[in-house]
Order: sequence, then C-alpha cells, then structure tokens
Amino acid sequence: RCFHFCKLPGRVMGIRLLRFTSVVIIVLLLVAGALTALLPTIKDDKLPNSRREPKTQSQSALDSFTLIMQTYNRTDLLLKLLNHYQAIPHLHKVIVVWNNIGEKTPEEMWNSLGPHPVPVVFKVQSVNRMRNRLQNFPDLETKAVLMMDDDTLVSAHDLAFAFSVWQQFPEHIVGFVPRKHISTPSGVYSYGSFELQNPGFGNGDQYSMVLIGAAFFHSGYLEDFQRQPEAVHALIDETQNCDDIAMNFLVAKHTGKPSGVFVKPVDIRNLEKDTNSGYSGMWHRAEHLLQRSYCVNKLVNIYDGMPLKYSNIMISQFGFPNYANHKNKM
Amino acid sequence: RCFHFCKLPGRVMGIRLLRFTSVVIIVLLLVAGALTALLPTIKDDKLPNSRREPKTQSQSALDSFTLIMQTYNRTDLLLKLLNHYQAIPHLHKVIVVWNNIGEKTPEEMWNSLGPHPVPVVFKVQSVNRMRNRLQNFPDLETKAVLMMDDDTLVSAHDLAFAFSVWQQFPEHIVGFVPRKHISTPSGVYSYGSFELQNPGFGNGDQYSMVLIGAAFFHSGYLEDFQRQPEAVHALIDETQNCDDIAMNFLVAKHTGKPSGVFVKPVDIRNLEKDTNSGYSGMWHRAEHLLQRSYCVNKLVNIYDGMPLKYSNIMISQFGFPNYANHKNKM
Repeated sequence: RCFHFCKLPGRVMGIRLLRFTSVVIIVLLLVAGALTALLPTIKDDKLPNSRREPKTQSQSALDSFTLIMQTYNRTDLLLKLLNHYQAIPHLHKVIVVWNNIGEKTPEEMWNSLGPHPVPVVFKVQSVNRMRNRLQNFPDLETKAVLMMDDDTLVSAHDLAFAFSVWQQFPEHIVGFVPRKHISTPSGVYSYGSFELQNPGFGNGDQYSMVLIGAAFFHSGYLEDFQRQPEAVHALIDETQNCDDIAMNFLVAKHTGKPSGVFVKPVDIRNLEKDTNSGYSGMWHRAEHLLQRSYCVNKLVNIYDGMPLKYSNIMISQFGFPNYANHKNKM
Repeated sequence: RCFHFCKLPGRVMGIRLLRFTSVVIIVLLLVAGALTALLPTIKDDKLPNSRREPKTQSQSALDSFTLIMQTYNRTDLLLKLLNHYQAIPHLHKVIVVWNNIGEKTPEEMWNSLGPHPVPVVFKVQSVNRMRNRLQNFPDLETKAVLMMDDDTLVSAHDLAFAFSVWQQFPEHIVGFVPRKHISTPSGVYSYGSFELQNPGFGNGDQYSMVLIGAAFFHSGYLEDFQRQPEAVHALIDETQNCDDIAMNFLVAKHTGKPSGVFVKPVDIRNLEKDTNSGYSGMWHRAEHLLQRSYCVNKLVNIYDGMPLKYSNIMISQFGFPNYANHKNKM
C-alpha cells in the first residue's frame, strides 16, 4: 500500500485526501508542461527594413518574381541564359514561352540535368506570335514579372537591384532599355532612342518608354493587356512587333504617369552573335524602326490620344560597383 | 424722311414695319459682335506634361520654391551666392536667416543694386542658433523649400533637376549630400559617410539621411519641426549641430520610409576657402563627427527607436550633361 511516504501526511490528513492532492499536483504539472510548450518563441530583433533570409523552399509572392522568357529559334542561347537566370536571387519560377511550333521542348534534357534551383515551365505555343509572352499564364504566382528577351544577358547584381527598385515603383515598368517618341509639327509621331532629337523639355534627354524585353512589371498588366481593344492585338500580330510599345501605352494610360522607370544597367549584353542557329532577332529587319513609329501612330488612333509621358529620371545603385560612385569633389 | 431706300420695301410693307425690321437687324448685329468678343481664345495644343512658361511676375506656389539660406560671418560668400541663386529657374523668393547678431544686414546695399529677379527677405535673429533656419517663416508662400548652406554652390542645372525630382517625391528630402548611420553589436549607433562600413544589405552602400544644407523639402516639415519634443531643440542648441539629423528623423518617422532621395550632383562646390572672413564652418571643429554620432544616439532615445531607413537609390539626369550618358554597349 503506502509506505513511509504516507506516514507523515497520512496520519495528519488521511490517505484519501493525500491521493487526491497527489493527483491534483500531477495534473497541474502536466498542464504547466503543456503551457510551456505552447509559449511563442522569442522573435529575432530585426533592423528596420532588413531583408528576410531567402526561403529555401518557396518565396513569398511579394518578395519574389517570375521570369517569362519567350524563345524562337535560339535554343542554345535559351539554355545558356537559363543556367544564368535560374539562380538569380528572389526568382520564384521560370516560364519559357516556346514559339518553336511543332518542335519538342528541351524539357527532358532539362529534367535530366536537374536538380534546378526553381521550377521551369515550358509553355508550348500553337502559333508563333510575338504577343504569346503577354498571356496571363495560370502558372504565375508572383505579383512581379521579369520579362527577358532570349538573347539578353543582364547580371544578377543589376537584376537584384532593379527588382528592389520595382518594389518601390510597382505600378511602373522598371527596366534597362529606355526609348522615346517625339512629336513633329505635322502631328505625326516618330519613335527612337537618344539619337533622335530631345523632346525639348529643358536640359538633357527624356524617355517615354521602357522596353519589356529586359524589365520588371506587375503581373496584373498581363490581364490588362488581354482586355485591350482587339485592334491592339491585331496591330501586334500584323507587325510581329510593338508589343512593348503597346504595354507602355497601357501602363501610361493606367497610371497617368510616365510608364517606365529606367535603371541604368552595369552589365547588359546581347548574345545574338553567339547563337549557332544563324537566326538574328526581329530588330534586324529593315523596316523594324519604321514599323515602331507606325505602331506609335496607330496606337494613338486606337486610344484616341497620346498617353505616353516623359521622364528624365535615371536610377543607379548607390556605392555599387564602385563604393565611392556617389562621391563629389566638394 | 425716307428716300429711295424706302421706296421699294416701303410700298410693299409699310414704313413702320421697315423701321422695326431695321432696328431688329441692327440689334442682332450688335449682339453678334458682342458674342464674338466673348468667345474663348483657341487654346494651344499642349503636349502632355509640358512645362508652363515661367510667369514673369510671380510663380504658382506649386511650381516654385523658396530658398532659405542661413548665414554667419561669411557675408562675402552670401552675396556671391545670392547673385547666383537669385536667378535659378522656379525660384519664388529668398529668405536670408541673419545670424550675425547685432550687425546690420546688407539690405541697403542689396536694394541699391536692384532690380533683382525675386524678393529677398533678411530675417534678423536675436540669438545665433543653428536651428534658426528651421523656423516656420510667415514669408514662406511655396510648398517647397530649398535649403542651402552659405558656403555651398550648386549649379542651376542640378537645382532645376532636383526640384523636378522633389515634385515627384514631395514627402522626401531630395538633395545632394547623402550620409548614413550604422548599427553596432553593442547597440550604439555611429554616423558617417561612405568610408564607414556598409550597413550590410546586399551589394554596395546605403544611405539613411540626406543633409538639409543642400536639399529640397516640403515647407510643412518646418512646422512639424517646431512641434517636436523640447529635448530635440535642446540637443541642437547644446551641440549647435545636428539640426539636419533631427530633420531626417522627423521625416522618416512621418513617412515610414527612407527620409531622403539622393540626387547625384554634377557641379557642387564648397566655397569655404574663398571667404575673406577667415571663418571656417562648424564641420571643422574637432568634435564635429563625434557630436553627430552622439546626436544619433540621443535622438534614438528621445524617439524611443531608430526611425531612419536605408536606401540605395541614386538619381541622375537622363542624357545630361552628356546626351548619351545612359548608353550601354549592348
């Protein structure tokens, strides 16, 4: 029964009371133990605005972006670029828009060379269209899209910085290639780069577009694009060009502000000459630039006005690559 | 009476009706003439975002700024700078904060050398205090303030561009001199420029303050500053320093974002060595930088936390001075 443990209190309180007390004490200890297990863990003291550690499994939809890369007849460049881009910080997933109609994607080879840092999805297209890359892909889980041409290499440093800039300007196209339109006395617009005359607003030059072949923008604009007038889609199909100009019109109309924010790239390269396919991009066609001027004027007709606005803001990264790149002689 | 004019219609309609008809016609002609005079003049076809012509008399409160320049013992520099700054585009008025206690302002000489492009007001101070320039001057009519030290020369091009940047970021301090704080394992903060180690957020450097001695900011912040805890004013009076650090704390707290936007100046000069007064600025004092670190820590105590946030955005002007300054080798 009950040995010397029982002797003292047993004689005072009685065995029944003693058992009851023991049970109560044991229950309380169990409850205390359970409560301790449920206490919240002490939070890390975070510096304001500190960057979270990259999650190994998947990244939050706000802190990461999806790369959309359309490809035609340059699979060698595509694979070279995929090896580079698959490891960019904050990348969530890659969507390859496969415009090589009837040709097998390199998915098998891709899988055999795994594992890969992020998922890559090959979207097989039925028609080779420039605007295939502007579909509102169901695979998209992030707010941000990084769109890259399949012959353009931008350094990871530039991309990480530009992504952080996009997060501060999420309604704009934040990218590396600025262009402008100018107005002429006849009312007809012309399209070009810095060799074209300044629009004439004070010192220096202005840009009114940022090309989407090397830029971040909000994934919501893909849905917007699908909802644009049929004439816009027809124009892009007719020219197999100008999807980027159309996107800039869309964004400028939506925000009432300049569509793009230009981030000056430190290291951007065109790999076109490196391809074995012998295929050179659309911009080599004789009529390429004239087509783009044509598109600007057509879009002004379709939208019944010129929504593009000028900006002269050029953004660079403070203290990078040269830690004293902001120094002045004062 | 009525001669051959009357003969034909008179015989048909009667003289009374004829007179009535003539009167009606005359009245209609007069009314038509009056309406023509009241028609609105045809508006100029303005390009989106085009800059309005500068008004010769006074500029709109939104399109112009007030220069506030505090001065002590460097009247020769002050006058040299006034000649330069008085003609900056979009300048509305100059407020000179006269810290030369008991000394006459150069107002008479200034007036005798008129006319001047804008009004200049000399605010005579009773005590030589660093924070005199942060009063909410009733003379202020513009939303924007440009604050300049009395030994700093910034080119008109830089100022015009930085003003246009401020108009896009009106809640920030938009200026030419970035600084940072860093945190140490002991929890004590230190203040410095790029020679100080990076705060450690990715590549490159970061800044967390933009000094107000060469910057644009919203005039509302002057009123805010007056409403800050007495301990802040006492700190600035004790050190005769740190008013700019205090302003950055104020703005960061107000916006929850980095207080400043850094615009890289093309042409900024310190004229200190050019003065005949033999007076060199406060920043030459041995304890100047240590004082500023001290101020950072004191302000963290007063505000019970560190509100400053880091930024690595560096803004330059697209296509100026070099029209191809954004070009890349792609």
